Amino acid sequence: MRTPTQVDLSQRALQLLREDAQKIQQLIAVQLENLTAPKCPLYEEVLDTQMFGLSREIDFAVRAGLITREDGREIIHDLEQKLADLYTKVLPSPGER
Amino acid sequence: MRTPTQVDLSQRALQLLREDAQKIQQLIAVQLENLTAPKCPLYEEVLDTQMFGLSREIDFAVRAGLITREDGREIIHDLEQKLADLYTKVLPSPGER
Repeated sequence: MRTPTQVDLSQRALQLLREDAQKIQQLIAVQLENLTAPKCPLYEEVLDTQMFGLSREIDFAVRAGLITREDGREIIHDLEQKLADLYTKVLPSPGER
Repeated sequence: MRTPTQVDLSQRALQLLREDAQKIQQLIAVQLENLTAPKCPLYEEVLDTQMFGLSREIDFAVRAGLITREDGREIIHDLEQKLADLYTKVLPSPGER
């Protein structure tokens, strides 16, 4: 078995972070489907906690030299975009209220 | 400049995690010195948040193959021990209450 190179470790780190981001997306999708009040404080607390955890992982990966700051920003940006899409589907638009 | 090896990356990861643990210890020491009520919910929330962040970093480093599960447990255990020592110095023992 060969020793993993930095490239292997960096790719693995990126993959893990993207999986973690996807887990948050799935968690939020399940919550939005099941909660009657997606704006409730409990829901926002879960999201805040999860985003904080992911941002700490990303910050660590950047400092450890595994991913670039830009890679990290992209993971967070993609996740925020996907969450915004979820909200659009679930929450009524202002005109429909 | 040579490419960092896995050993370099692992040592760097361990060093970063130990520094993060030390930052939590310092933060808690400052709080204990300045708060009149170390048992207050705000204090406990800060500690919980910081410990959660560190545990996510450690878990990520283990999954990324940078440190062993045992290394991670040791960092948390050391920090808990140091925090326990801080409490002993600051909080009155049950007999003194």
